[in-house]
Amino acid sequence: MEFVNCDETLDDLLINGLQIIQKTKGFRFTLDAVLLAHFVSLKEGDRVVDLGSGTGIIPLLLTTRLNKIQVTGVEIQQEMAQMANRSVEMNQLTEKIIIMEGDLRNIHKSLGGGIFHVVTANPPYGALGEGLINPEHNKALARHEIKCSLEDVVQSASKLLNYQGRFALIHRVERLADLFTLLRQYDLEPRRLRFIHPYLGKPARHLLLESRKKAPADLQVLPPLVVYEKPGQYNAEILTWYGKE
Amino acid sequence: MEFVNCDETLDDLLINGLQIIQKTKGFRFTLDAVLLAHFVSLKEGDRVVDLGSGTGIIPLLLTTRLNKIQVTGVEIQQEMAQMANRSVEMNQLTEKIIIMEGDLRNIHKSLGGGIFHVVTANPPYGALGEGLINPEHNKALARHEIKCSLEDVVQSASKLLNYQGRFALIHRVERLADLFTLLRQYDLEPRRLRFIHPYLGKPARHLLLESRKKAPADLQVLPPLVVYEKPGQYNAEILTWYGKE
Repeated sequence: MEFVNCDETLDDLLINGLQIIQKTKGFRFTLDAVLLAHFVSLKEGDRVVDLGSGTGIIPLLLTTRLNKIQVTGVEIQQEMAQMANRSVEMNQLTEKIIIMEGDLRNIHKSLGGGIFHVVTANPPYGALGEGLINPEHNKALARHEIKCSLEDVVQSASKLLNYQGRFALIHRVERLADLFTLLRQYDLEPRRLRFIHPYLGKPARHLLLESRKKAPADLQVLPPLVVYEKPGQYNAEILTWYGKE
Repeated sequence: MEFVNCDETLDDLLINGLQIIQKTKGFRFTLDAVLLAHFVSLKEGDRVVDLGSGTGIIPLLLTTRLNKIQVTGVEIQQEMAQMANRSVEMNQLTEKIIIMEGDLRNIHKSLGGGIFHVVTANPPYGALGEGLINPEHNKALARHEIKCSLEDVVQSASKLLNYQGRFALIHRVERLADLFTLLRQYDLEPRRLRFIHPYLGKPARHLLLESRKKAPADLQVLPPLVVYEKPGQYNAEILTWYGKE
């Protein structure tokens, strides 16, 4: 069976022998997805939805954290969803991961509302009108709020989650105030917040935030996540994720 | 002239030869005030109001940061305001600091609305109904939202500030979402945010946040402020503030 097309690459995820199919030119996963997959709180048996799943990087990584997990990746672009599906098959993870082609704005109708323990999202970072729109269309979709707004993502997460269900996302720090406002508007209470600093002593550019549905206010700000020890060398915490090989 | 009463102590601030009068038993200033006084953005010539000034610790410390500054400390408790006034006189800072006894909820009527460059506040941390109310009354006022709510403080700051004026406060991380909501409600946009971690690798318990009146959204999350290098030893950053002696 031929998994990889000629305009695609097959990349090692350096954990549990996993591999992922990506476009040679086009959106390729970044460290953000890796950080989110290691941030979200998970329990054995959790049913998870990953919104805007792209090539399926987050579902693939989540399977390395627990033995028993059921992840549904939702992706609106047919080509990306098909690529993600091939990665799932190739890694023999079809019992743990389902990739669905669909629009996150109404995905609760087919998946079921109020029944998931966890939702993850690595949403497009640039609000429309900010920055340049990438001429390569699938990169543009992943980086800008073209097909869906931040509010669409938050609303979708809230509809999918059960009582006390967790919604974890990664985003730019500039959107923190918007995030807090939107999350509360959709009954999601921010509970775990972690800032990502490229180096210790440098401002944070991104944040990891986990909210709980209909939970009381009790925010914890975790120790900063420092990405690089020095140029080209990841921090020890990040390297431990890759110590299992 | 007798500055210090028998139930009071005279404490060195270890900077610029400053001293402060405090109650032997009662509210005594904490590191929080010191951190806030060094966090707020200041320019030469700024007119500043410190809301809920207590013993005047923040006005006193602000004078060490710039040559030309005019600070008004507002304090509702007569006994505290008088103590603060004596500290100002004793330090010969009457040309830079004015202490006013008054209620911050209507202080803009006497001070003037929309004319200050900077407002600072180290507000009571516990929302009413949270935690134990301190039996010593002036400690209780400083630690709980008895005389004024967080909303009163934010509203007062907004009324006092001029266009693009800065409002800096220190608070518990649990209130971050409330803060963002309240600040935006009163036209104050969060712009500089810094989390205070007791040690690197420990969760943050407090935050420093500076907002600007009617400014566009552009939040910066600064490097974490780590208080202790090891037990009993302040971090180098904090020690540099005391290197001028």
